[in-house]
Amino acid sequence: MSEFVEQWGRYETQWEGPRGGNPFCDVSLQAEFSYGNRVVPVAGFYDGEGVYTLRFMPDRVGKWRYVTHSDVPALDGRRGEFTCIPASGGNHGPVVVRDTHHFSYADGTPYVQIGTTCYAWVHQGDALEEQTLQSLRAAPFNKLRMCVFPKDYLYNRNEPFLYPFERDERGVWDFTRFHPPFFRHLEQRVGQLLELGIEADIILFHPYDRWGFATMGSEADDRYLRYVVSRLAAYRNVWWSMANEYDLMRDKTVGDWDRFFQIVQETDPYGHLRSIHNCRQFYDHGKPWVTHASIQSSDVHRVPEWRTLYRKPVVLDECQYEGNIERHWGNISAREMVHRFWQGTVGGGYVGHGETYLHPQDILWWSKGGVLHGESPSRIAFLRRLLEEGPCGGLEPMGPWGARQGEAFFLYYWGVHQPAEWTLDLPEAKRYAGEVIDTWEMTRTPLPHPVSGKCTMRLPGKPGMALLLRTIG
Amino acid sequence: MSEFVEQWGRYETQWEGPRGGNPFCDVSLQAEFSYGNRVVPVAGFYDGEGVYTLRFMPDRVGKWRYVTHSDVPALDGRRGEFTCIPASGGNHGPVVVRDTHHFSYADGTPYVQIGTTCYAWVHQGDALEEQTLQSLRAAPFNKLRMCVFPKDYLYNRNEPFLYPFERDERGVWDFTRFHPPFFRHLEQRVGQLLELGIEADIILFHPYDRWGFATMGSEADDRYLRYVVSRLAAYRNVWWSMANEYDLMRDKTVGDWDRFFQIVQETDPYGHLRSIHNCRQFYDHGKPWVTHASIQSSDVHRVPEWRTLYRKPVVLDECQYEGNIERHWGNISAREMVHRFWQGTVGGGYVGHGETYLHPQDILWWSKGGVLHGESPSRIAFLRRLLEEGPCGGLEPMGPWGARQGEAFFLYYWGVHQPAEWTLDLPEAKRYAGEVIDTWEMTRTPLPHPVSGKCTMRLPGKPGMALLLRTIG
Repeated sequence: MSEFVEQWGRYETQWEGPRGGNPFCDVSLQAEFSYGNRVVPVAGFYDGEGVYTLRFMPDRVGKWRYVTHSDVPALDGRRGEFTCIPASGGNHGPVVVRDTHHFSYADGTPYVQIGTTCYAWVHQGDALEEQTLQSLRAAPFNKLRMCVFPKDYLYNRNEPFLYPFERDERGVWDFTRFHPPFFRHLEQRVGQLLELGIEADIILFHPYDRWGFATMGSEADDRYLRYVVSRLAAYRNVWWSMANEYDLMRDKTVGDWDRFFQIVQETDPYGHLRSIHNCRQFYDHGKPWVTHASIQSSDVHRVPEWRTLYRKPVVLDECQYEGNIERHWGNISAREMVHRFWQGTVGGGYVGHGETYLHPQDILWWSKGGVLHGESPSRIAFLRRLLEEGPCGGLEPMGPWGARQGEAFFLYYWGVHQPAEWTLDLPEAKRYAGEVIDTWEMTRTPLPHPVSGKCTMRLPGKPGMALLLRTIG
Repeated sequence: MSEFVEQWGRYETQWEGPRGGNPFCDVSLQAEFSYGNRVVPVAGFYDGEGVYTLRFMPDRVGKWRYVTHSDVPALDGRRGEFTCIPASGGNHGPVVVRDTHHFSYADGTPYVQIGTTCYAWVHQGDALEEQTLQSLRAAPFNKLRMCVFPKDYLYNRNEPFLYPFERDERGVWDFTRFHPPFFRHLEQRVGQLLELGIEADIILFHPYDRWGFATMGSEADDRYLRYVVSRLAAYRNVWWSMANEYDLMRDKTVGDWDRFFQIVQETDPYGHLRSIHNCRQFYDHGKPWVTHASIQSSDVHRVPEWRTLYRKPVVLDECQYEGNIERHWGNISAREMVHRFWQGTVGGGYVGHGETYLHPQDILWWSKGGVLHGESPSRIAFLRRLLEEGPCGGLEPMGPWGARQGEAFFLYYWGVHQPAEWTLDLPEAKRYAGEVIDTWEMTRTPLPHPVSGKCTMRLPGKPGMALLLRTIG
């Protein structure tokens, strides 16, 4: 127990308590964290072997106090305090929605989502998982979609190393008993992502299951959600994704998904981002507990439509993956992946990467992590650098070819179109420096002179070109 | 007047008649061509300077006779006959619909539509028009979309050399008086296309007008249609397109377009193909007088949907053009143009090319003709050769990746998808020779051995690849 915790860091404390019976179900442990007159209710959790843990992420600098409530005397009425000190270095807090369609960190620093997906990477064992972390360190991604549960699917038949629940000698799962080593491992990986500046989009349910975790029944589902949230919510880089491809989980109704959102919302003291990902049928992202639309679609040109429809950030988490497998969702070219990133970006949305190249040991990035083989990540990194050089606000689409941030920043992108000239209609009162960008070759060619007002300029007349304009002075 | 005319050739005869008054309106001239007991009514036309012409395209080998009917004695009761001899060489007759979604020539030879567009080429003067014909001679196109009326639009401000109507000294058009030299010129060009084996998709109306031809009123519209049909229908390579972008002609109602179709249908003795082309809003191609859907759209993947909807051939006449102008419809890359041809083809439809590269004298192929500058025509020629090597029937789409002709011919195309392996599910009882095709590099790599039944094969894992399979023996 440290007396000093940085803002959006983790305060953690533990006590010994009952081991008998089923502590996961039989023992209640709640705390009230207070800052002046403000009180934040926080659930503790049983971490096995008689240990009960309380985790908390303070969001204000200053003195925090807490008191526990439990039906077990040893855990009840426990009090403590710590001092929250300013965040250090790269710690900007959790990501929140800003300006309707965009994100920022809690301290106001813009967050330009550049996602990728490694669904089952935490189930691959230390060697591969550490290789994945190495790859992420050099990659452009600042969000990773990842499942809690193991995965049973094409190229994913290997057993996980740890399971989230206990089972008896006959192999029957006991969904009332969580397996703390599994969760400690998950937390380690989430914490390592945090150190890399990567948001962990935690996928709570998914349909690709042979163990029964997709069909536990509502009582077990709800208990599981509360347990996961009580353990993980204090990690500032956590996002909650109710599901990958929720609509393929025939066992659950829309009412179940609504309830899951509500449970997470009421259990999470920090209001981390919440979404749900579709296969074919969209969930109604307009519902109030959804913070942003998480979409699977290859209709990238529809991003502006979804923005208007939902009035929330649009994250096109899955627009098919760079790769060469037989499935249509896993074999687009690197150029097409890059194209979709740019197209979604000038649509005012955020795009997710994935990679599915055939591998002799079935180590495909999209599910297991490992090494990136594709040609899109370097181009996505180039795009990220351009966007992060831009102004603080997000991009607002303007017609099919471009996006703007007020009058400060314009970004055009033409995709498979290759105009050799283009007429700009810029504010008369401002002057702009421009760069012609080859999105594939990653070149930036400054315009020979500033532009302003209505003017026609020459372009290279090649596909995959973009134009970036920024106010001067 | 020749006594022998080949099947689907042109029989033509002329008489002197009245010059006074307005022969276009005042004189009626009809003929009945007969073959045995079969009678075909045909309208003659006034060709200026006292000359009245009757044109006829015989569709059966043997003896044909005719008799004229006119309210002018000099033209009434004229009789004649000729012998129709078998078609020679490349003359396969007019193109007709075959097997619901496809075309053939009247003699049963398959016709695989590979279109292009030179809207106003007949208004450019002899030098450029002859250059256009030279270009077409070396190009892969077997259909050309072309307007009767001159065009006023971007890159198209030059006056035509000839006009379809007379006008007075004040420049006021007389829509009751056609200008025969204009039509003789048009016919010359249509005849030259015929010699090149190119169907002339005659666009009867269009909105890009500064002369008033788009807003003549219904009486003049109808008279014009009858006159054009009476002059041109005997050219076997004529197709009738009621309009380019009919929905931009605000002056005309859907009822007008219905009537135009009906007038053409009742006036044309040969039942040439009839269609109408949209800008945004489709005409109902399901109406009985429409022979095929002529569509403008860049949603090439929807071709199978339109086939099902209309149960007619789908010709995607405009899916945007290879070029580099500022307009989105005129600046797709050559690769994208080629991609759309392949995508439409495996969708079971037919695609049209166009080219719009900036030119110092505004000579853009899509409107004026001239020289082809793009990189798509050679790839389109490659596709045409592959298709013409195929079986007689047209392609039926099967899912997003391929099309088939019964069990004889399979064509897969993956576009921006790049699978490195693919599982075929072919008939067990047949053996197939295959070729892996690079649609851009125009290479054909034979498979090392025949394939049959369910089998997984390796593919290059590159975008733009296709696979063609043909039964052996």
